Formats: sequence, structure tokens, C-alpha cells
Amino acid sequence: MTHNIAIIGASGYTGAELIRLISGHSSMKIKALGGNSKAGQSMGQVFPHLRHLDLPDLVALEDIDFADIDLCFCALPHKTSQEVIAKLPADLKIVDLSADFRLRDPAEYERWYGNRHAALEQQKEAVYGLTEFYRDDIKAARLVAGTGCNAATGQFALRPLIAAGIIDLDEIILDLKCAVSGAGRSLKENLLHAELSEGYHAYSVGGTHRHLGEFDQEFSAIAGRPVKVQFTPHLIPANRGILATVYVKGDARAIHETFEKAYSDETFIEVLPMGEAPSTRHVRGSNFCHLGVVQDRIEGRAIVIAALDNLTKGSSGQALQNANLMLDIPETEGLMMAPLFP
Amino acid sequence: MTHNIAIIGASGYTGAELIRLISGHSSMKIKALGGNSKAGQSMGQVFPHLRHLDLPDLVALEDIDFADIDLCFCALPHKTSQEVIAKLPADLKIVDLSADFRLRDPAEYERWYGNRHAALEQQKEAVYGLTEFYRDDIKAARLVAGTGCNAATGQFALRPLIAAGIIDLDEIILDLKCAVSGAGRSLKENLLHAELSEGYHAYSVGGTHRHLGEFDQEFSAIAGRPVKVQFTPHLIPANRGILATVYVKGDARAIHETFEKAYSDETFIEVLPMGEAPSTRHVRGSNFCHLGVVQDRIEGRAIVIAALDNLTKGSSGQALQNANLMLDIPETEGLMMAPLFP
Amino acid sequence: MTHNIAIIGASGYTGAELIRLISGHSSMKIKALGGNSKAGQSMGQVFPHLRHLDLPDLVALEDIDFADIDLCFCALPHKTSQEVIAKLPADLKIVDLSADFRLRDPAEYERWYGNRHAALEQQKEAVYGLTEFYRDDIKAARLVAGTGCNAATGQFALRPLIAAGIIDLDEIILDLKCAVSGAGRSLKENLLHAELSEGYHAYSVGGTHRHLGEFDQEFSAIAGRPVKVQFTPHLIPANRGILATVYVKGDARAIHETFEKAYSDETFIEVLPMGEAPSTRHVRGSNFCHLGVVQDRIEGRAIVIAALDNLTKGSSGQALQNANLMLDIPETEGLMMAPLFP
Amino acid sequence: MTHNIAIIGASGYTGAELIRLISGHSSMKIKALGGNSKAGQSMGQVFPHLRHLDLPDLVALEDIDFADIDLCFCALPHKTSQEVIAKLPADLKIVDLSADFRLRDPAEYERWYGNRHAALEQQKEAVYGLTEFYRDDIKAARLVAGTGCNAATGQFALRPLIAAGIIDLDEIILDLKCAVSGAGRSLKENLLHAELSEGYHAYSVGGTHRHLGEFDQEFSAIAGRPVKVQFTPHLIPANRGILATVYVKGDARAIHETFEKAYSDETFIEVLPMGEAPSTRHVRGSNFCHLGVVQDRIEGRAIVIAALDNLTKGSSGQALQNANLMLDIPETEGLMMAPLFP
Repeated sequence: MTHNIAIIGASGYTGAELIRLISGHSSMKIKALGGNSKAGQSMGQVFPHLRHLDLPDLVALEDIDFADIDLCFCALPHKTSQEVIAKLPADLKIVDLSADFRLRDPAEYERWYGNRHAALEQQKEAVYGLTEFYRDDIKAARLVAGTGCNAATGQFALRPLIAAGIIDLDEIILDLKCAVSGAGRSLKENLLHAELSEGYHAYSVGGTHRHLGEFDQEFSAIAGRPVKVQFTPHLIPANRGILATVYVKGDARAIHETFEKAYSDETFIEVLPMGEAPSTRHVRGSNFCHLGVVQDRIEGRAIVIAALDNLTKGSSGQALQNANLMLDIPETEGLMMAPLFP
Repeated sequence: MTHNIAIIGASGYTGAELIRLISGHSSMKIKALGGNSKAGQSMGQVFPHLRHLDLPDLVALEDIDFADIDLCFCALPHKTSQEVIAKLPADLKIVDLSADFRLRDPAEYERWYGNRHAALEQQKEAVYGLTEFYRDDIKAARLVAGTGCNAATGQFALRPLIAAGIIDLDEIILDLKCAVSGAGRSLKENLLHAELSEGYHAYSVGGTHRHLGEFDQEFSAIAGRPVKVQFTPHLIPANRGILATVYVKGDARAIHETFEKAYSDETFIEVLPMGEAPSTRHVRGSNFCHLGVVQDRIEGRAIVIAALDNLTKGSSGQALQNANLMLDIPETEGLMMAPLFP
Repeated sequence: MTHNIAIIGASGYTGAELIRLISGHSSMKIKALGGNSKAGQSMGQVFPHLRHLDLPDLVALEDIDFADIDLCFCALPHKTSQEVIAKLPADLKIVDLSADFRLRDPAEYERWYGNRHAALEQQKEAVYGLTEFYRDDIKAARLVAGTGCNAATGQFALRPLIAAGIIDLDEIILDLKCAVSGAGRSLKENLLHAELSEGYHAYSVGGTHRHLGEFDQEFSAIAGRPVKVQFTPHLIPANRGILATVYVKGDARAIHETFEKAYSDETFIEVLPMGEAPSTRHVRGSNFCHLGVVQDRIEGRAIVIAALDNLTKGSSGQALQNANLMLDIPETEGLMMAPLFP
Repeated sequence: MTHNIAIIGASGYTGAELIRLISGHSSMKIKALGGNSKAGQSMGQVFPHLRHLDLPDLVALEDIDFADIDLCFCALPHKTSQEVIAKLPADLKIVDLSADFRLRDPAEYERWYGNRHAALEQQKEAVYGLTEFYRDDIKAARLVAGTGCNAATGQFALRPLIAAGIIDLDEIILDLKCAVSGAGRSLKENLLHAELSEGYHAYSVGGTHRHLGEFDQEFSAIAGRPVKVQFTPHLIPANRGILATVYVKGDARAIHETFEKAYSDETFIEVLPMGEAPSTRHVRGSNFCHLGVVQDRIEGRAIVIAALDNLTKGSSGQALQNANLMLDIPETEGLMMAPLFP
């Protein structure tokens, strides 16, 4: 059986990554590609690396016939996404990659994103898309909200520990190193090769990054009380990858055991042997997340390190994993490609 | 039906790339991995990006039972390869990725590589592995010699033109820009990130690069008279990719038409529209080769540009394509993954 | 004695590079920095790497009092530059870094740049700024036109050979590899780190790059007859550097001797020993140009390779060298810093 | 007055950087360059970027006549350095760039470096080379021990805060992002461009990095009681730079004020405006250190970020600054070059 797929916002990096992944999927067929700013162009023009594929041309949103579509990926900028999704057919299965449906509390949404939410009804039914932890809800969902790429990485490193109650909830520091494709295809001076390639820096320092909204929501829900983490992202001169160095207070061995138990049945989460640290170079282009645990020299402190590819496991790979669940396709279909190294 | 595969020399980049590709192949199973220097280690130790795969540990060559093996990839350094292959079972199907069986004339081999060939018998039966031009021979071959990655790129840009007699055979210049993984995993100062990442340079300047032996052999055979090209490779601060800028004297439109005809049935050779230039960023991690033709402002001169991934189409992807033919598997099996961008 | 300097267009890369160089100059003082789009900002805001310097804030052009200024560097985009310079005091010494005054024939200017020249009078008096070949004219000039960075590199590799009549004038091919800062601070998708860092490509293929106007003008003048070269630039994932691989027909040894003689008194042109090839990593951040000559395996053909830093010797360093001459300061003042390696 | 300088271990990166800096120094002259493995070679052969300089050839250590030398820089690997320095003339002024004389307690040295110290007498007289905090001792010293590059960065971010007693001494976390030149010119697989350029990772995780010995020694001395910090370095795909993200408990505004006061007279330490974060791209190739302070969203927590160039301020620039003091030359001589950007 073949499932008909639409992708809206197909001219950005997450859109291109979705097409890359779906091109290797055994039972999905891309029927429509929406991209208003480049409507009328072929994907080979917009993304020459996809020119060998037999893909529909980009069209304006209103020219897509959704009657034909089994599932729609929405890879639009936030704010735009909620406006568009509010108008899509109410029974259309949707995986949204934007930030618009991640936060359940509209007030929290407004606090982090600055605008009143324009699709409150849809927001109510949206399921948070961190597959490994919301699998059953996602299977039953109509609308799934893809998580932030940083938020996903941090949660893989922390959710089982918070759930197990084995770390100090008031002393969690996440220091993230993010590759530049996470910033999308936007044109900014500090994303230019000339400025980034030999320079790196922290951004959104001090707890202002919007993915904190997701951490607050999820960690507090697990703990059953408010949890606030410290989170500092850094922009690194590499294209793909997130490396989360997480400083916690707890017993390293207990942490490692908790991970091994929590992720023993998970195909995409690889827990490294105790004491080993992962590297972004070993997950590039794949849907895998590598997790390492190291005991610090200071008694009672541990370092948890998570590595994944922000465009794959952190975004489009996660989206496809969720779509597989929603369409009752084996969860790993189209996602088992090995990382590209070197 | 499943074919049992062995890879000798599995701890280098081309070995890792073979495993990456075969992990997505529907009818090959890796039964043995040979690597003398790292025998006893698991592939997850040598290449952590492959740790999720169920692979045999690396073993010494003599510990491989070839009775069990349908086809063996040999990814050893040159000179070593011929010595090893001379001792392998005489009926074992082999795809060799080294330089050892590319040159048919032992004297030419000795001239370019400096040593007397140690497997003359095997050299006689070896078929040159440029799939698109030796397809029928490869299907029937026992031993296929993978081409040089630079040699493959240059030949995609020139063979149809020489065959068609539409360019001046005495005025061909190939200026190649090669990414660093082409130099393999060898430890040299100018391959260090600190020295290469912000520096680039020509090497083997003046016609001393060994892949010239392949150009001489192949181009002369096609033309029916000696053809000598000028060839200057450059080391570029990127990981994967070869960009060949080829300067020829001939009519650009005729060249473009010749390409379109020559490659119309080829899955992996994409001829770009007249006047467009390819980029390595659009073939990374894939088995595709992009070809462009541009008319120079000087009447009667054209620039042909070819781009491919040195580790895939230039090496391990080509090897798998040939193995598919030798095992009567559809030629493109395991090779249709889209390029990784960005 | 201290010379008062103004820089117009100080918020681009060549402006920043001028300030870097002048900050180490013993007898220049920056009195005014013009940059309309960022007027009112401090240089520390625009370029935090210059925050330790005691510099005037950026001001609008009309707010600069040129009575006070001994020499003005103009680092504006082309077209804008000619309009601005037409209105500056007629006796103000100016070094222009744009393309506007490089071509002596207004028809040639219009052919390459597409607009009628708006400062014909100034164009007439402008001296072409390739210091090593126009030294006496520059000393006496009021307005000096900085050369194109590619044009400078190619000319260092070819002028002495054309002058000596030792190469075939109809068979010159320049294959240039240019780092990305040469494209300036403009916001384009293919200058983003995500798209460039692992991809490289040819651009302006086929003889359409504007620096060809300079080659045509200069080489024809030296030869006393029209000379047309082939010239293909490539964008390379590095920040600074131009590597010109020049294919010529001529005797390599004679070429090397010609270089040694031509450049024996030049501080900034380093002729490498016969057979050695230069690398961009050995000139970064400096005003040096390294030149190598290699004999090809084909009799009668040679490869000349030139390497320089596009922002220093290719642009702002050249500009300062010319300004030193115009102000009767020792030519090398402020320019002797060693390259930054690694 | 000109001071005669020798550099031992001149063929590594810190040696090359010393030569680069001294080439712009008004009163130092390099009289001898020692490098046993490359003795007999010219510096132009070993480091082509220095070929324009008039430098002595590399010689074996025993061929240097130290009678002639006013100050010797020692850029040897640790362990080797102490053995060599033990045999140098007892009245020779020495700036050592190795780790051998940083730790005052021989037991601590042995604990971190694994061998018994072979120059205990010299170790006793050695002064710790963090210029801004040991200025007077350095002026009077015969032997100065250059600090670790990570150790310098962390101390600039923490010493004034510990001295002022305004942060919690038991809750300090240093997350460092280090460019690859800090690993030196050693040949290791994970320093290859192919492996590093698109991958980054933590190393020496868990408090095993040797620079912790310096932190322990210095911070405990300032505090007057044992202070142990958490310190995790990461290898980043860039050539030069250290970015230290330091998590502390204390009042951000008090921290910023303390920095402003502590560094108000320091030429090379730039305290950014409150809330701004520095970037390595703004200090490259220079002797400056940029310091930023940001208040976290969690009350009572602050993030301090320090950026410097590991080869300059973190190593050879610091060494020259110390040598200036030891020779009674103005401290900033030869060190005021602006950073290279982009």
C-alpha cells in the first residue's frame, strides 16, 4: 500500500531532508510540494541534489488538492504554520515541524513566542512529537508537533533521569553545541561561511532560547513539580549535529543503568559503554542518537552527553518516524540508513 | 536470495563506506570483515558510527573462510592488495578497490607504481571497473579493478567526447579539486585539520599523479592513438567530493548533445542543462555524477565540469555497482540514496 | 609626521581589513570612517574584533570634513563608488577599492559592468593600482584604482611572461580557486556556511567574470596586440585565499628565470624554487604572493601557480601599499606582518 | 637595544607562532632556532609561510651557543622540556611553554603527568606565567612557566571572582570549546580534517584533563582553601580559539563590576558590555581576551564567557608578553596586532 504525502514549506532545509528520507521509503509517495515563494519551480532548480528524483513541482498552497493526501508534513516558519494549519482540512493527518504546537499552555506559547496563538483548537489536539516518549499518543493523533531539535537532544539526556528521580532537579545545566543548519536557510551575517567557519559563540545566553519552553513543560510534567534548567546553546562551525553536554548531580553508574533500561528497546537511541563520550561525526545524516555517561572527579556529579543530527533525529527524521506511526507503517521504515562518515 | 560478502581492509574510509552502503542493500549480508592491524576489534570500536549494525568483528585475513563467501571486496593499500589477491581462492569473485589491477600493461604499472607486479596472472583477467563503459565485461568478470576516483571523474567528462571525435585530443586539460577523504586515513601533517581547513594547494603537479596511467590507457584505447592529457589535482578543505574542470577545444553544444545521448540510459550520470555548472554539495554521499557543459567566450572552446563523491561514485559506490552486476543483482540496488544536503 | 586617513565604506570586509592594517602603521591615523547604512554605530559594534582600537564612530558621508584628510580609501560597492568619488574634493588623494576605475576605456567598462560610467573625468586620471607594475605612476597619482583580487593574482603569474614573449599568447588558461571572503559580506544562500562549507563549484564559467576586462586590458597592452585568456573562478570553502593555477605553453625553466629576474627586488612577491607549488595557507593575512613554476610532463607546457590573500595583497594590502607610495611613506610600512599559520 | 633570542622546539605550532610575533617586534632578534628532528633544515622548508624572513636554520640543541642569547623560549613537549632546561646555563632567562613548570608541588606534578619531575631545582624558582596576575614576579624571574591555554582562559574568567568572594566556590563548571591547533601538530586520526571538520566531541571528560592541576593550584591559593572545579573540554572544528562557558552561582552585575575593576588597566583583557557574549572570531591571531557576563533566568546564577586565541594569548603571545617583562621591554611590544577577521 502506498501513502500519498504532501510537504508544505518544501524549500527549506527540513523540507529537503524530508524528501531525502522519503525517497528511500518503501510505501510513501510525494504527491504535492508546497512552497509559496518558489511556486512554479521544480525541486531540481531549488535543490539540485534532488534533481534525479521524480518529484512534483513546487506549487502554491491553495493549489494542493488535499483530498488526495494521506498525510501532510508542514515545514513552515512558526506563526505561519499555525495560520496555515488552521485552514487545512480538519481530518488531514499532519506532522508539523514548526514550534507552533509544542507548548500546550497558550499563555506559555505567548510568553516564549510573543504572539497570541492563532489556532487554539488545533493546539488542543496536538500531540508532542518526541516519539520514544509519546509513541501511543502519536499513533492515535491527527496532528503531531515536532519537537525543537535542541529540546529533543536535551530530553533524550534527561527524561529517564528525572522520571527515575536520581538527579537533583534544581541543578541541571545543559551546554549545547549546535551546527549551523539548525538556524535554517535564513540569510544572516553570522551564518555566512566567512564569519562562522573560524568562529564560534554562545547565543540566546541566559535562558532566553525558546526551546526552554519545551524543557519547562516536559520536565515539570515528569517531575510533578516545576523544573527549571539552565540552557546555553552555542553555534559551531559544522553543518549538522547537536552535542549536548549535560551537567547533573547524581550517581553516574545509576544514570547509565537507567539509560540502558529506558532505551533497551529503542532502535534509534544508542547508549554507549560507561565512560565513553559520543561525537556528532558518528551520527551525521542518520536518525540515531548516541548517549554517553561519565563520572566527574567530583563525587556525586556526572556528565551526560547526547549527540544527534539536528536535521534528521532532531527534526525531519523524527517527523518521518511519527508519520510512520500515524499511518501504521513500521516505525523505522525509511530511517535505517547508516551515518555518513567521514 | 542473500549473497554472502567479505570485506578485506575494512578499517579504512572506503571499507567504512562499503559497509554503510551494504547496510541498506536488500540482498547482501556481510559475513567477514578483514583488517589485520585491528583484528579482534569490533566495528563499533573502529567506526562508532556503525555501532548500531550487527556486524562480525574484524579478523585477520587468514581467519576468513572464503568457502562461504560469494564476493569479496578488497579495500587494501596498493601493492598489499596484489599480494593478498594472488593468494585468495582462484574462483572467488573479487572487487578490488586498490590501484593494483587498473593498468593492463605490466610495464605501465611498473612505471607508475615503481614495483614489479606480483600477481600478473590475476592482472590479465582483471576487468577495468568503470561500470558505465565496461558493463558487459564486468557482468562476466571474476576480478574487477575499481578505478581511481580522479580517473573516474575525468573519464565521465571525456570518454564520450573522445569516442565521438569532437574534441582536440592534444589539448585536454583537467584541473581537479579533490576533497580530503580521497587521501584516505593516513596520518600526514598536511591532512591535519589545522593545516588543511584554511589552506588549499595543488599536488602531484606536472603530470606525476598515478591516475594519469589510467587516463593514458583508456583515452588512447578509445582514440586508437596515443592521447596524453594535462592533469593537476588540488587538495580542497572539504571531506567528500571531486570537481573536475576540464578544458577542451570543441563545440560546446555538440559536447552537450553527445553527453545527453551517451548518458540517456544511465541512472547515475546526470547531465545538467546546457550552461549550468555542477557543485560537489549536490552529490555528497550519493552515487550520482553531475555533468555540466559551458561554452567559453573564446570560439571553439568549452568547459566540461563533473562532480561526484570520491568515496561513493568514485570508489565504494562504484564497487558495489560492479558487485551487483557480478552477482546478477539489479545494478542500482543499495545505491539510490539521495545526496546529503546541506 | 602623521597622515590623516578616511575610509568610506568601512563596514565591509575590505574596510575592516584596512583598519586592521592601518592599526599597525606607524604614521597613519584614521580620522573618519564613513558607512551610511551603519552611521552612528561604533566600529566595536559593527566589528567587535576592532573594539580595542581608538576609532571614530561611523558617520554618514556628508558628515566627513575632507579638509582634514590626507588620503581617503574608498571601499564602496562598484557604481556607488564612482558616484561618490565624482563629488569628493578634486584634490583629495583617493585609493578606490571598487571596480569603477580599473578599466580605461569607458566602452569596455560599460560592456563588463552594464552601466554608463558616471565619473568619466576621474576615470581619465585614475592609475591602475597593481603596485609592482605601476609604481611610478602611483607615486604621482591622485586617484588609484585598486585591482580585482583575481585580476591581481593572474597578473602576477603572467605579466612578466607576456612581456618577455616566452609563452603562447593564445593558449593561456587561468583556473582560479577563490575563498569566500572575496564575495564580500553579501547575504546569499550559497555563501551560507551550511551550503558552502562542504561544497565547492565553478562560477561565472565561460568567460563572463568581470575581472576578465582587466586581463584583456592589461595583457593586450603589454603584448601590443589583443590577448584573450580563458578564466574560470571556483568558490572554495575557505575564508581567505586565491590560488591561481595557470596553464601556459612555454619553457618552464625560462619562465622560472623570468620570474626570478622580474621579482628580484620585490618585497612581497616570493618566487618558490623551481618545481614547488604554493599553498594559500602560507600567505593568509599577509601581503605576500607566492609563485611556483612546474614543468608539465608534456614537452613545452608549464603550470604557474600563484597564491595570495584576497583581502590583503588582493585588496586592502595592495591599497595600503599604494597609499604609502602616494604619501611618500616607505612602501612596505604596515605590511610586513607574517602570515597567520595555522 | 636589540635582545638576542633563541627558540627551542621551533618546528611546532607554538614555535611558528613565536616567530610570527617576534618578526613584528622592534627590539628582538632571533639568533638561534633549535629543533632536533628537523636540524639542518631552513625555516622556509619547515614553515613556508615564514620563508620571507631572514632566519637562522634549525640546528640541534647542542649546536646553540647560549653565551650569545639574552632569552630562550622553550617550546618543547612536556617531559622533554624539563630534561633540556635542567642542562641549560643556570643564568639563562627562559620562558617555557610546556607544562613542566606550572605546578609548584612536585607531588601534584607527578599525579597529573605520571612521571617524577627531572628538574626539581628549576621547578622551585619557576614563576607561573599568567602575566596579568604574576606581573611583578615575572619581571624578576629567570624561568617563567607558560600556562596551559585552557588554564589561562578559565583563570581570566574566574580569578577576580574568587578573589572577590562573590561566587560559590563549590559550584563552578567550565565547559570549554577548543580549536584544534591546541592539540599541536601531532598526527592522530581524530585530528585529520576528514574526521574533525564535520564532527565535534568532548574529551578528557570527567575531570581528567591535566590543566585541572593548574586550576586546583591557583584557585585554591586565591581562596585560601581547596577549590575544585568541574571542567570539560570539547574539540571544535576550527583552527584557533578557546571559548570558555563558565557557569557560576553569584550576582551577574557584581561579577561584571568586579571584572571591570580588575581589568581596567589591562591592555589585553576586554570586558564586553553587560549581557554581551564574545566570539572566537573576534580574537583570532591576536593577544586579546574578550570577557562577557550574562545573567541567567535562574536567580543567582550567571554565565561568564571568555574567548581568546589559544596560540597567541593562550600560549606564544603570553610567552612574548612575559619575555618583554623579563627583558624590561614595554609589555605590549610586538603584541598589538588586531585580530584577523574574517
